[in-house]
Amino acid sequence: MKAEIIAVGTELMLGDIINTNAAFLSRELAELGFDMHYQTVVGDNEARLAEVVDIATHRSSLVVLCGGLGPTGDDLTKETVAMALGIKLIPDAKAQKNIDDYFLGRHICAAPNNKKQALVFEGGTTIYNDNGTAPGLFYSRGETSVLLLPGPPNELEPMFKDKVRPLLMGLTGQTIFSRTLRVFGIGESDLEYQLKDKMQSANPTVAPYAKIGEVHLRITAKAGSEGEARAKVEQKEAELREFIGDKLYSDCGRTLPETVVDILKRQNLTAATAESITGGGLAREITAVPGASRVFEYGFVTYSDNAKERILGANAKTLNEHTAVSAEVAKEMAEGAARLSGADISAAVTGYAGPDGANVGRVFAAVLYKGELAVKEFSFGNMRPREYIREIACKNVFDMMRRALLGMKI
Amino acid sequence: MKAEIIAVGTELMLGDIINTNAAFLSRELAELGFDMHYQTVVGDNEARLAEVVDIATHRSSLVVLCGGLGPTGDDLTKETVAMALGIKLIPDAKAQKNIDDYFLGRHICAAPNNKKQALVFEGGTTIYNDNGTAPGLFYSRGETSVLLLPGPPNELEPMFKDKVRPLLMGLTGQTIFSRTLRVFGIGESDLEYQLKDKMQSANPTVAPYAKIGEVHLRITAKAGSEGEARAKVEQKEAELREFIGDKLYSDCGRTLPETVVDILKRQNLTAATAESITGGGLAREITAVPGASRVFEYGFVTYSDNAKERILGANAKTLNEHTAVSAEVAKEMAEGAARLSGADISAAVTGYAGPDGANVGRVFAAVLYKGELAVKEFSFGNMRPREYIREIACKNVFDMMRRALLGMKI
Repeated sequence: MKAEIIAVGTELMLGDIINTNAAFLSRELAELGFDMHYQTVVGDNEARLAEVVDIATHRSSLVVLCGGLGPTGDDLTKETVAMALGIKLIPDAKAQKNIDDYFLGRHICAAPNNKKQALVFEGGTTIYNDNGTAPGLFYSRGETSVLLLPGPPNELEPMFKDKVRPLLMGLTGQTIFSRTLRVFGIGESDLEYQLKDKMQSANPTVAPYAKIGEVHLRITAKAGSEGEARAKVEQKEAELREFIGDKLYSDCGRTLPETVVDILKRQNLTAATAESITGGGLAREITAVPGASRVFEYGFVTYSDNAKERILGANAKTLNEHTAVSAEVAKEMAEGAARLSGADISAAVTGYAGPDGANVGRVFAAVLYKGELAVKEFSFGNMRPREYIREIACKNVFDMMRRALLGMKI
Repeated sequence: MKAEIIAVGTELMLGDIINTNAAFLSRELAELGFDMHYQTVVGDNEARLAEVVDIATHRSSLVVLCGGLGPTGDDLTKETVAMALGIKLIPDAKAQKNIDDYFLGRHICAAPNNKKQALVFEGGTTIYNDNGTAPGLFYSRGETSVLLLPGPPNELEPMFKDKVRPLLMGLTGQTIFSRTLRVFGIGESDLEYQLKDKMQSANPTVAPYAKIGEVHLRITAKAGSEGEARAKVEQKEAELREFIGDKLYSDCGRTLPETVVDILKRQNLTAATAESITGGGLAREITAVPGASRVFEYGFVTYSDNAKERILGANAKTLNEHTAVSAEVAKEMAEGAARLSGADISAAVTGYAGPDGANVGRVFAAVLYKGELAVKEFSFGNMRPREYIREIACKNVFDMMRRALLGMKI
């Protein structure tokens, strides 16, 4: 089935906001088995919106519109689609109650034109909004269906995942199940080369998404029931796991720092950091995880030789002989952080982030856990931007911490 | 003049990447005076691309296509547009030399199909690429012009700014000049309310862009010459500055941390940080600025009471009496960081980031400079996400540092 997306809004048209909804919807719809052929953006203009709706409904089986469902006069998606397809708009009592409750819960008065938001398609399906006031709308006639979703991503995304997916599965007659394996330490092209045979399957599909330093493999299966789809995914997952081994760090959507914090929590351990090149990035990412205070108390940013010596007790002789960017200094920084904090595991990182200098991209990291010290040297390439080098350095340190905590080879 | 954008690429179509090019181009084209009516995304498919090119060239005066100019068989934008408009493709010696030099400089062999990238429109304008191999192409016939740009943003954006802008100004017969004033400490609605009269002008235009905790006001003027346009902008800027006063922190595109690092460098001063709630975010943002090592040596992340006491020397009694989230502890953290680092200015921040708890969003920040201590209390709202609270806390600290360094009231 062919599907296409129309995002409505002058703020998109003028480039004030980026069309993240189109990317989200495309990914989700492709996964549901729709052939995605077009995306369109159009401003809050009735004539032009009517024109693109006309083009779209004549070439695609499913047209998904997002945005323009708000209460103001500018919001005209629903009215324009109703007009174009000859659908009557009728008030929906439950949608109206949701809107009234929403405003009541926030102790503000509903604007009178919120009545407009409770109008729905006669003969269509109303998709109630748990995170805002505008309901979604779904309407099928013959071979063509239209789906209208609210524009704010924090309303659109949960509505799609919780309510639209099942609805569209009804349309395609199939259930979809998917799971993402997050892999650190193998490049995308290596992974694709080595897993070529295992990844080239039609159902389940395996789609690799390359991120900085890591690859996410999304396995998606279609079947008549969820159990069947899940079984297909799990069989493929087992095949992939055999190759990926302990480079797989999450199968439940956790990031690397979230994975490290989770292991620390479960093992009742604490961590400390000593940073030069990353300048606080390690500490910031750990403390971005809710509940990090249970596992993290001390972070040291020692950006100069002086600071490394005075705060972490790095040896002046080591600094002179080996320079601050060396395995020896990384080791002394990790030892200093452990000594000062009393934490169970400590991690240190030092290197050159650039932009200038011959050694840009050279990084040393050390992890000290249970008296065992692991030190690694990295060359991230001197053509890379400063922030790339800092980010990939952080990820490598988190992976070293993960491996140390789980007793894996570093 | 009506303009529209067509982004080409299956990776956009499937939602693997977000269409940031459309937002960038829309903003730039709107600023150049084009009326932006449509954006389309289409996959790497000749028939569908030909169809959208046909629709677009019949309804808009300028059609901007991006992506699909690469060397592979999938890249078919140029060939499809040439076919649709009946333009002949001819080799361009300078484009070919650029491609050869590009590969030579990187010590890799040019793939044979790079010859395809050096084909250009006969009778059109070739826009040479300083950051990649695919040249841009511009072609006008009668009332309609097409512009083809390479897809990677790091090629497209500089090409547009340096080479396409002047070309399109030729098309509209006008020169554009713009400048952005970055304002911290006034909300967007306040700013719009108070500056309503000054912002409602047609030439120059004033467009507000709301960011977390700050607003950017982009002033854009059109005129026959750059000098004239610049004079218009500067006159409007003077009017706005009168109201904004010292809440304006940059007129040259610097972020708040970049502004702080710049002031520190110019005054030959050093800074140190002591962080609880932001967990290293202050240090990380300072060290993200190239050359930060000249002004920043020491950052302390003290995420527990123990750490505040043992590292920064916060008083156990103060911690007990006032709790770690208090003006008193913020003050002692700033004092501790100054004492340990010997830095000229020190900043400390403590607070509740949530997600749970009654006091989420309550934050205290202290800045110590030349023996003068400034402490501020903030309530960022307990409905806000954890990362929002951490980010806006950082920005407020940077603004306090800026104001302290420049001798402004905090």
